[in-house]
Amino acid sequence: MILNVYEQKKPFYLYTGRGPSSEAMHMGHLIPFIFTKWLQDTFDVPLVIQLTDDEKFLWKDLTLEQTNHLAFENAKDIIACGFDVEKTFIFSDLDFLTNSPAFYRTICRIQKLVTYNQVKGIFGFTDSDSIGKISFPAIQAAPSFSCMFPEIFNGRSDIPCLIPCAIDQDPYFRMTRDVAPRMGCLKPALIHSTFFPALQGAQTKMSASDPNSSIFVTDTDEEIKDKINKYAFSGGGATVEEHKTKGGNCEVDVSYQYLTFFMEDDQRLEEIRMAYTSGELMTGSLKKELIDILQKMVGEHRQRREAVTDEVVRQFMKPRKLKYDYPAL
Amino acid sequence: MILNVYEQKKPFYLYTGRGPSSEAMHMGHLIPFIFTKWLQDTFDVPLVIQLTDDEKFLWKDLTLEQTNHLAFENAKDIIACGFDVEKTFIFSDLDFLTNSPAFYRTICRIQKLVTYNQVKGIFGFTDSDSIGKISFPAIQAAPSFSCMFPEIFNGRSDIPCLIPCAIDQDPYFRMTRDVAPRMGCLKPALIHSTFFPALQGAQTKMSASDPNSSIFVTDTDEEIKDKINKYAFSGGGATVEEHKTKGGNCEVDVSYQYLTFFMEDDQRLEEIRMAYTSGELMTGSLKKELIDILQKMVGEHRQRREAVTDEVVRQFMKPRKLKYDYPAL
Repeated sequence: MILNVYEQKKPFYLYTGRGPSSEAMHMGHLIPFIFTKWLQDTFDVPLVIQLTDDEKFLWKDLTLEQTNHLAFENAKDIIACGFDVEKTFIFSDLDFLTNSPAFYRTICRIQKLVTYNQVKGIFGFTDSDSIGKISFPAIQAAPSFSCMFPEIFNGRSDIPCLIPCAIDQDPYFRMTRDVAPRMGCLKPALIHSTFFPALQGAQTKMSASDPNSSIFVTDTDEEIKDKINKYAFSGGGATVEEHKTKGGNCEVDVSYQYLTFFMEDDQRLEEIRMAYTSGELMTGSLKKELIDILQKMVGEHRQRREAVTDEVVRQFMKPRKLKYDYPAL
Repeated sequence: MILNVYEQKKPFYLYTGRGPSSEAMHMGHLIPFIFTKWLQDTFDVPLVIQLTDDEKFLWKDLTLEQTNHLAFENAKDIIACGFDVEKTFIFSDLDFLTNSPAFYRTICRIQKLVTYNQVKGIFGFTDSDSIGKISFPAIQAAPSFSCMFPEIFNGRSDIPCLIPCAIDQDPYFRMTRDVAPRMGCLKPALIHSTFFPALQGAQTKMSASDPNSSIFVTDTDEEIKDKINKYAFSGGGATVEEHKTKGGNCEVDVSYQYLTFFMEDDQRLEEIRMAYTSGELMTGSLKKELIDILQKMVGEHRQRREAVTDEVVRQFMKPRKLKYDYPAL
């Protein structure tokens, strides 16, 4: 649907977000933003990024001041992915609600149309959950509608929205798509980024509180090397002999999985896959490929993040018109 | 408790409100404000008045624009009760949420601590109710805490609150008192204004949609006279003979009940009660007393309301310091 819109040269915008529950962002957190950046570069459209500091206050044992500060710090890592301030608006819920009459009004319109029964069914809430949690889904839904950003869209409510997000955010937007027609709004379109596994394998969970479960954007070259060598689950043979005979299993090899995300050269990736599967390429060499790429990526990210001052964040977070024009209807 | 605070010359403030669901305000709507005005005059304290335009949007078949407009118009009738702009802050939820970082933050803190089970028990919500309704009680609770008004209280969270309100608002503030200690806030104190009956008697309901159920602030002298004479439920005898023998029943006589609200001279009221009870004073004469008072009150209200321009309303609604000082702790 969005591709049709694009082919007809009609405007659309991108919306993604993050729940700021910790300062330490890992590569898994960046994947949706790297993907979003690619979409924005390809289609040249506005992007809004929601930082749900209110959500993290409601769910976690954190104060409002803490989650609001985390939102600000996380914005730096997001900006360091290379977003353009002329095309991108980043907002914290706690701050933007106080800056935008349209935000709370859009939330009210959604909250009027969604029942407790519905959010119970969609999100699995129980009667012991707080009324904050129960009403929160409307706050994540609101940015799917262009009427929430009159500064950006010149008050127009007919600009379609494409949401790149991880699959676990799908329930929010199923609810949003359900409610959209009853609000006289357009249904947002969704595009899911692929699941990014923990170092220990696809069945384990990446956790910001376990430094060995993922590569963090703050890791040094040495830490990256150690983590990949020690913790990245290997699909290689148990011994050199076995590996040479039976080959490696790319399906479960985390280093190979990571390469599918980070290696830009698809032909080289395919060569690696064949060499590893045949047993010709050893696990150590495969890991070396990944370590080199990650050290370079994280190093560049670190440099870009250092350049992101508080003032730069404030520019991204200022409610304002972006470089795109929307003629009044 | 509040009287102790006052005797110790410690500060407190008043908080009351109205749900703006119709432009037509009747005398029953004004009673809490007249009572609040008396409290403010007596104790010389700040007053905050919440207009829940978001609530009325959620509950009624009205748009946000409509309830927001009604809030603005209702503010004129409230101001016409004689409030002092130096001492009184009036706010619409929809507008003030966009003006005050402290408002949404206070709401979040309350919403985190109140479960669906609790609001279900207190307000009788069902699973088919909207998540807007379910989370609204936190919005009515928030102004009970002085931390919500940093402009007025210089950021202090230790100023106690006294809430004059109708008895039907009690559930909101039972919830508020329950949650206050867990927020590290003071419990608000409550003072209930007496129930104001419909013209047809205490068992019937005043309704803004039934013009004959009450005296409206927009009624003419003629309408007031007609309504009292025709519709005010009488506790008098069925015939003149019976009235003279058995006397009138002040307990059920609506005209007498209204006089207890509006007659300032308590001695005169007692004379009327005795004369009516004995049968000496006829129903027509009792009603005449009330008609005179109401015509004068409504006439004066009408004049004062005409003087309340949009600009005056905006002054009352501007977030600002009032005439009271609160030294930083």
